[in-house]
Amino acid sequence: MTVKGMRALAESDVVVVDRLAPLAVLEGLREDVEIVDVSKVPRGRSTPQEQINHILVDRARRGSTVVRLKGGDPYVFGRGMEEVQACTAAGVSVDVIPGVTSAISVPGLAGMPVTHRGITQGFTVVSGHVPPNDSRSTLDWGALARSGTTLVVLMGVATLPAIVAALLDGGRNARTPLACVMDGGLSSQQVATSTLGQVAASGAPHGLAPPAVVVIGEVVDLASSPSGPSARR
Amino acid sequence: MTVKGMRALAESDVVVVDRLAPLAVLEGLREDVEIVDVSKVPRGRSTPQEQINHILVDRARRGSTVVRLKGGDPYVFGRGMEEVQACTAAGVSVDVIPGVTSAISVPGLAGMPVTHRGITQGFTVVSGHVPPNDSRSTLDWGALARSGTTLVVLMGVATLPAIVAALLDGGRNARTPLACVMDGGLSSQQVATSTLGQVAASGAPHGLAPPAVVVIGEVVDLASSPSGPSARR
Repeated sequence: MTVKGMRALAESDVVVVDRLAPLAVLEGLREDVEIVDVSKVPRGRSTPQEQINHILVDRARRGSTVVRLKGGDPYVFGRGMEEVQACTAAGVSVDVIPGVTSAISVPGLAGMPVTHRGITQGFTVVSGHVPPNDSRSTLDWGALARSGTTLVVLMGVATLPAIVAALLDGGRNARTPLACVMDGGLSSQQVATSTLGQVAASGAPHGLAPPAVVVIGEVVDLASSPSGPSARR
Repeated sequence: MTVKGMRALAESDVVVVDRLAPLAVLEGLREDVEIVDVSKVPRGRSTPQEQINHILVDRARRGSTVVRLKGGDPYVFGRGMEEVQACTAAGVSVDVIPGVTSAISVPGLAGMPVTHRGITQGFTVVSGHVPPNDSRSTLDWGALARSGTTLVVLMGVATLPAIVAALLDGGRNARTPLACVMDGGLSSQQVATSTLGQVAASGAPHGLAPPAVVVIGEVVDLASSPSGPSARR
């Protein structure tokens, strides 16, 4: 959580929150702050985006200072710009406060830097929600296989076998290491490591369940190297 | 700046800082906190990485609690893992505190989400420090051209023409919009927009100077659309 985000919360009349938002920060709010829960639970209760937009605009038009609290960064698969557009179209002004994305922080806390000198000069973050070869995909997985960047996949637990197959089809080396970080940054964090070839042969690591961040690339090996931070645990 | 980072600073005896770190946060520290400036100024004074590592280990071994304060996230081109490895090899334990990377926050504050539903399901962040076709490059620029992700280039001011040429060679559409965000997030922020084709024909946008974040992809157009946040400025 950022200092700027905490300041915005302290000045809010209404807080509209997700399931993935850092809910502990709500405990310090004034008692009269309205908290609206708009969680989208997978295959469960869900608040349509249009309704979230409506709540934001409605409360703002009543004169309230509204904070839309999300986990991670609002512009990394957070539909943040859709909500900004809805507010702006309704004449409601918006300040955007960037956050710490799990795509970088979760690998980092597990000992895997998304970039490292001598290994890679870049990283790519994709949503695995839409699998390769799906007509809704905007991604070229063959190109992703060859880009030379660390690949971080969010929302990719269900589609991991298809993603691994697409990367191997695209020419990525079968020995490329892969890590699935579950409950990243929490005391319950678990890391399962494998390789593209092993997943293709035997399936996803045992026990893999969401929420998980999948890291694919040579930086995965830094977490288990003798001089890496995990060696002292 | 994160709340966790502020807490670490408040408990520090020594703070080792970069030029790009948020220096205003140092003003609230106890008077007896030692501040070591290890800025690496382009083509100017520079502290070798080995010396930075030595300072961190030396102060920690003397019993001090040392904070290594960097701008952005320590694992996004920050050589963070190199410093962790040096400390760990010397028996000094390290806690990593993720940060807000300029690769996501600077485009976002300029009205460009790195991901947006219906436009792209991913983004790629690369360092432009090493140009395409350089033997030191770990990146496949042809693949980056075709991946379908938003491309964010840090440290790419000097190499922008070469990068644009490589993306066009790789098949990226010449009409793809491009934005250079200078002094991102500061009151002096400036945004210059262009397209890959325009840069190829006429060079980088006039006045382009570091520090700048270059954003390449259709999300650039969201910043200037009538329903985008910049419309109210």
